[in-house]
Amino acid sequence: MNKFMKEDFLLETKEAEILYDNYAKDMPIIDFHCHLSPKEIAEDKKYKNITEIWLDGDHYKWRAMRANGIEEKYITGDASDYEKFMAWAKTMPYCLGNPLYHWSHLELKRYFGIDELLNESTADDIWNRTKELLEKDDFSARRLLERQKVEVVCTTDDPIDSLNYHRDIREDKDFNIKVLPTLRPDKGIKIENDEFLDWMDKLAKVSDIEIKNYEDFLKALENRVDFFHENGARVSDHGLDTLLYMDASLEEVIEIFNKKLNGEVLTNDDIAKYQGYTIIQLAKMYNERNWVMQLHLGAIRNNNKRMFGKLGPDTGFDSIGDQLIARPLSDLMNRIEDNSGLPKTILYTLNSGYNEIIATMIGNFQDGKTPGKIQFGSGWWFHDQKDGMEKQLTALANFGMLRRFVGMLTDSRSFLSYTRHEYFRRVLCNLVGNWMNNGEVPYDYNLIGSMIEEICYYNSIDYFELD
Amino acid sequence: MNKFMKEDFLLETKEAEILYDNYAKDMPIIDFHCHLSPKEIAEDKKYKNITEIWLDGDHYKWRAMRANGIEEKYITGDASDYEKFMAWAKTMPYCLGNPLYHWSHLELKRYFGIDELLNESTADDIWNRTKELLEKDDFSARRLLERQKVEVVCTTDDPIDSLNYHRDIREDKDFNIKVLPTLRPDKGIKIENDEFLDWMDKLAKVSDIEIKNYEDFLKALENRVDFFHENGARVSDHGLDTLLYMDASLEEVIEIFNKKLNGEVLTNDDIAKYQGYTIIQLAKMYNERNWVMQLHLGAIRNNNKRMFGKLGPDTGFDSIGDQLIARPLSDLMNRIEDNSGLPKTILYTLNSGYNEIIATMIGNFQDGKTPGKIQFGSGWWFHDQKDGMEKQLTALANFGMLRRFVGMLTDSRSFLSYTRHEYFRRVLCNLVGNWMNNGEVPYDYNLIGSMIEEICYYNSIDYFELD
Amino acid sequence: MNKFMKEDFLLETKEAEILYDNYAKDMPIIDFHCHLSPKEIAEDKKYKNITEIWLDGDHYKWRAMRANGIEEKYITGDASDYEKFMAWAKTMPYCLGNPLYHWSHLELKRYFGIDELLNESTADDIWNRTKELLEKDDFSARRLLERQKVEVVCTTDDPIDSLNYHRDIREDKDFNIKVLPTLRPDKGIKIENDEFLDWMDKLAKVSDIEIKNYEDFLKALENRVDFFHENGARVSDHGLDTLLYMDASLEEVIEIFNKKLNGEVLTNDDIAKYQGYTIIQLAKMYNERNWVMQLHLGAIRNNNKRMFGKLGPDTGFDSIGDQLIARPLSDLMNRIEDNSGLPKTILYTLNSGYNEIIATMIGNFQDGKTPGKIQFGSGWWFHDQKDGMEKQLTALANFGMLRRFVGMLTDSRSFLSYTRHEYFRRVLCNLVGNWMNNGEVPYDYNLIGSMIEEICYYNSIDYFELD
Repeated sequence: MNKFMKEDFLLETKEAEILYDNYAKDMPIIDFHCHLSPKEIAEDKKYKNITEIWLDGDHYKWRAMRANGIEEKYITGDASDYEKFMAWAKTMPYCLGNPLYHWSHLELKRYFGIDELLNESTADDIWNRTKELLEKDDFSARRLLERQKVEVVCTTDDPIDSLNYHRDIREDKDFNIKVLPTLRPDKGIKIENDEFLDWMDKLAKVSDIEIKNYEDFLKALENRVDFFHENGARVSDHGLDTLLYMDASLEEVIEIFNKKLNGEVLTNDDIAKYQGYTIIQLAKMYNERNWVMQLHLGAIRNNNKRMFGKLGPDTGFDSIGDQLIARPLSDLMNRIEDNSGLPKTILYTLNSGYNEIIATMIGNFQDGKTPGKIQFGSGWWFHDQKDGMEKQLTALANFGMLRRFVGMLTDSRSFLSYTRHEYFRRVLCNLVGNWMNNGEVPYDYNLIGSMIEEICYYNSIDYFELD
Repeated sequence: MNKFMKEDFLLETKEAEILYDNYAKDMPIIDFHCHLSPKEIAEDKKYKNITEIWLDGDHYKWRAMRANGIEEKYITGDASDYEKFMAWAKTMPYCLGNPLYHWSHLELKRYFGIDELLNESTADDIWNRTKELLEKDDFSARRLLERQKVEVVCTTDDPIDSLNYHRDIREDKDFNIKVLPTLRPDKGIKIENDEFLDWMDKLAKVSDIEIKNYEDFLKALENRVDFFHENGARVSDHGLDTLLYMDASLEEVIEIFNKKLNGEVLTNDDIAKYQGYTIIQLAKMYNERNWVMQLHLGAIRNNNKRMFGKLGPDTGFDSIGDQLIARPLSDLMNRIEDNSGLPKTILYTLNSGYNEIIATMIGNFQDGKTPGKIQFGSGWWFHDQKDGMEKQLTALANFGMLRRFVGMLTDSRSFLSYTRHEYFRRVLCNLVGNWMNNGEVPYDYNLIGSMIEEICYYNSIDYFELD
Repeated sequence: MNKFMKEDFLLETKEAEILYDNYAKDMPIIDFHCHLSPKEIAEDKKYKNITEIWLDGDHYKWRAMRANGIEEKYITGDASDYEKFMAWAKTMPYCLGNPLYHWSHLELKRYFGIDELLNESTADDIWNRTKELLEKDDFSARRLLERQKVEVVCTTDDPIDSLNYHRDIREDKDFNIKVLPTLRPDKGIKIENDEFLDWMDKLAKVSDIEIKNYEDFLKALENRVDFFHENGARVSDHGLDTLLYMDASLEEVIEIFNKKLNGEVLTNDDIAKYQGYTIIQLAKMYNERNWVMQLHLGAIRNNNKRMFGKLGPDTGFDSIGDQLIARPLSDLMNRIEDNSGLPKTILYTLNSGYNEIIATMIGNFQDGKTPGKIQFGSGWWFHDQKDGMEKQLTALANFGMLRRFVGMLTDSRSFLSYTRHEYFRRVLCNLVGNWMNNGEVPYDYNLIGSMIEEICYYNSIDYFELD
């Protein structure tokens, strides 16, 4: 008897199965935050083998391989694609209990129709079968999205991006999925970074605004916000690994900016003042345009200096941080609210110990107009798995308003990860199905089914005003 | 089939049902901490409609309505009571998964006999039926308490309170519920607040002690402790949103107090020294009188400055904080122990991430005389729900001594919230019933039933020495 | 029906039972970290009564007794052994829900064949029966280990220890259990302690190296590392209650060390620099010898000054701390990696709120050679129970690689606590059995059974290179 990952996967009760089958399974997908390459969509890229589409750039798998004692050569090194796949296949049986075990097999099953377990003995066959399939039209970037009923994709883009690929996609009348850019101005926030001034020069160029001081800088940023808006953007995103906030006046921030221009060293207070003040200004721009602002909190990145030197960022050396956030988050949101009113906001955390803090913090800033205006985002990154999702959903239910939740997003670089929405929907239906089964919510499929549909799809349509 | 909130609500095993039915359900209630109005008890108030008794002052419901996009007019504004109730009824179906959904329906069921779900279509009927019922004698403040077998109520009172209502209640021989005051001297602890000196003047007046310096201030406080003691108080309460502690000498604190009197600005160290030293002195007073000291830790309040300006405190803009507490809590308790011996103490936390810290910290200060002398209080505020209660109970069981636990309290402003004791008892019986069912505790109803009765009732009788 | 602690104890599914019975139960034990007395093993000590072997030194039980209102006389005082046992027996029924209730009854059952519950009415009989049994050969220190199939015991030893008992044990050809020393150099790390210089003098003597400065000190430490290595040590251990790290140069640390020698007061920065730098040097020594380094994080000790004055350390006045650790832990590991490469490392935490941080931090430093090189250690101390173990296992599974886990250790001072391995194995099989039952892992006993065997035994053999 092999019960692994069958129809009732993650669905423990009859009620959960009915909710999933009748209300969740067939909903389209609004992927309001991901890291897909707009270029690959524009070019409708095809992939030469499973390593290219499945292992390249996937630092989750890389970490697992390193933990399993696989040499770097077979991870990011110069081994062949086939050898890399074999190394991953060898690691797979050691991932029992890790979300990679579920994600990987679900992706093999849904995209490639492969039901076998991946391991050393099945790897060669799976390599060949996937190679053959990847040559078919159904496996181009666009078709992979369409096959999963994706309706909207919000990519993640630097303010200096030309958005040419987005324009190309938009202008292609044969392709109906909306691919919208998202403004991610981290490089303009992280004034402490060496690359800040270089980036500023590029910003000046692309916005055609000479930047001689902080006020010019803000004008250039707003220019890009407008440009993104014209290109369909309705969402921004900020990676705030360390959330800094200190009250600051415009005069102070002008001064700090000048120090940076003059090559002076900034103090920690300078950085906190600059970061907080600048986000407040951006939030105003977002709010005026009715955008959604996303904040990603709690990562601690590039922990391994030796490997950072070799491989750079986003290669599998990040982990969960423990900065205290209640006070700076409250201060930041309070100042934005006071300055311009908060835009619609989604807060994500990488430390599930913050779940309660965030699930209660959002309640302080709901405005009595937009339902669910301030959102607690779905389990992020390391928490994009059953326990992490359940913790986030439970915290949101206990401390906030689950039924107004905008639900799942992939946050992924891979065209094969839309099965994460299936995963999320199963976890959601299981949680709520258990409540039905236990008598903790009314035994009314119309009522509970509506909630499932709203979280899976309709809330996003309303929230991002996509209709 | 509607299984919602039936006899076996929250009771997953046969053992849980037996424990609840035979040992928990009929126990009287000792509500050793709440915010009921002694005036309303003294006057045996009646309520003109369900909005007055159920929505007025209930910032839990207000938050939910704001999150659901309800305009402030229908929450705290000048809409009619009927309109406000309709706005709440409209919000109710969006609270699925939130404790408000359980609390509200349990209150409608137990107090009003209403089994229907509250929503827009049932709201008018429920408005009318509850209006009729509220006119009956069974719905006066006192009768609402009596109907739930409440034996003792400890209100929460400012040291400058006259306690006249408590005296009136005590002297009324027709009313048998003990209504005892609780000393909550927060305004004397928060020396950083603008209102401190005003409050001090009132303290001087009511205690008839001229306050020229810190030592006079302590004398005036002790005078009020005595006055509360004469009026039946055996419990104090402190809201320590930020728990500050720094070692300080009397001389230093005298100096800090003088700075305050002279209108000088206090440093953070001043505030920490004053707070710690003053609590140590109060703890001595409590201990000498065999009182119980309650500390509430981990809130972060009034996060929305704009709304605070409009509505003031306790209006639904508070959330969960993340101050580090292990070290200051250890220091404070250690100094009290060293100075006068700790009084009986109950520690509450709003951040369940502190559960382990508190559940283990209490073990450092048990005195080998009073069983369960230092207590970890039941899930507080946002945690007054199934998951929060289970987390607190589980932490206390794993790291402390569950069977010595004094159990549930309402912490409520509402005369309709005594069903929270039912809720707690169901959660408790479910947890322990599961243990029986799993073979994790002996299958012995005498033994396990005793534990349930002790936690529901007898431990409080012993701990607060109420016999 | 008494279902308490039967064959299926903690095993909720048929799959869990099969995994436990066929793969876990009969595995030998590698106890790679404990606090057993090598003297008692060398002398093959026998115990005069159950108090001596079961209550003496067991601060878990002492805490419980204090919480239950038992006078110190019957805990650590001058009451007779019989009276102390009676006091513990009286406390036992109040420990329902606490791991002590399981541990104690499991120990009575497995070592003494006693199935009755311990309480006041059974205590006298149990006292007599255990007294009789303890006189038999099967209850000597060595036999107690052998009866539980212990193959390896790593004790915990001061660098200045002569290791004579270890030598005696090693040379006794009639005794086949490996008893290896573990270097625990805490007294050389805690430069802030008064006893540091005294300890340094003893180190100088035992290593026969005159210590005039920091470099001599390091030489003396390395001398002891070599001595321990010659005596079979392959593991070190550090109790880092507060994990401090600040970058420092050798010159700075030499200076700090000189300040200490000169009796000057060290600043917090001095202490952090000294601690970090010295651990980096030790880690290099460990790595060069292929040792395993263990770090124990998150305790806050000796919280009750009054009782510390009477009883000293390790007497039941410790609890869980909340220091922020992500950044200093990342920095420390990063510097070690950069300096010499990390040795194999096991990180333990006393605050389960750190579980995610640690389970992700280890992934940053896996080296692609040794599978599972950086480990997240099993639930420690207060977490050595069902929930704590499940949380650790779940975090490791979600964020790391469970199948490479080295599993359980006792960390105990008691020869009766090897049933903790049974406890751990039941919890592990239950967790994984549930996954099988739910279809979350393949329904393949060969595959899943292998994982169980690896975690229970084989991974330790490989990791500590014990073959």
